[in-house]
Amino acid sequence: MTETVNPVALGPARILHTMLRVSDLDQSLNFYCSILGMKVLRREDYPEGRFTLAFVGYGAEENHTVIELTHNWDDQEYEHGNRFGHLALGVEDVELACDALWKKGVNILRPPGPMKFETAGGARERIAFVEDPDGYQVELIERA
Amino acid sequence: MTETVNPVALGPARILHTMLRVSDLDQSLNFYCSILGMKVLRREDYPEGRFTLAFVGYGAEENHTVIELTHNWDDQEYEHGNRFGHLALGVEDVELACDALWKKGVNILRPPGPMKFETAGGARERIAFVEDPDGYQVELIERA
Repeated sequence: MTETVNPVALGPARILHTMLRVSDLDQSLNFYCSILGMKVLRREDYPEGRFTLAFVGYGAEENHTVIELTHNWDDQEYEHGNRFGHLALGVEDVELACDALWKKGVNILRPPGPMKFETAGGARERIAFVEDPDGYQVELIERA
Repeated sequence: MTETVNPVALGPARILHTMLRVSDLDQSLNFYCSILGMKVLRREDYPEGRFTLAFVGYGAEENHTVIELTHNWDDQEYEHGNRFGHLALGVEDVELACDALWKKGVNILRPPGPMKFETAGGARERIAFVEDPDGYQVELIERA
């Protein structure tokens, strides 16, 4: 990290992870790792608290922001709400990526193509949205 | 990126951002930037779609995962649900960080201290939870 932050408020900091509650950890690990290509970086069982945490991502936790999947061992009723948006992944070719995911049975929420709206400067990114096993939205953004 | 991912499914990929819908962009930028020390990396108005995106983080988007704040210009009714968990930030000293945030008026949801539950291996991280202006939970985790 070469960036410095307000030393008064927080000290040096970095974004470690985004936590998502999942209903079936094996199913989520299949999606994020076998299909999206992340690795399981750390997995911790908390027998006393009856939950498991699995940290997945494209690189080591020391220098990559990752995803924390939380699985509560006892059944829970979950609601998505409409405030949290999505995770976004950068991919080389959004059409090829979507096609490959579709062939693996991933639900495509929004087919690949340019954003509906332009920026004030006239730019439009090429994007798609797919769905994770719990219904979280995952955006794919083409980054050449 | 030195990591390779399943070339069949997705191609090389990385986590770009987590998107959060916010009700008052100025208030959110004050929290994430003036208080938590992130920088505004990119800000785009979409006049046709009547929304603004602001990307904030601790480093450049090219090699850091960031947060996308989405502000819809027209009033929206939002519900948090209980599926999405939180963002986690790594800090040097969770007590000092919490104290500084509290003095800036940030709501402390869970005071600093060790995790309630141990891992199977007996480890306990030192953590705290604070609240962003929209009620999103932000976890602080001590990383020496």
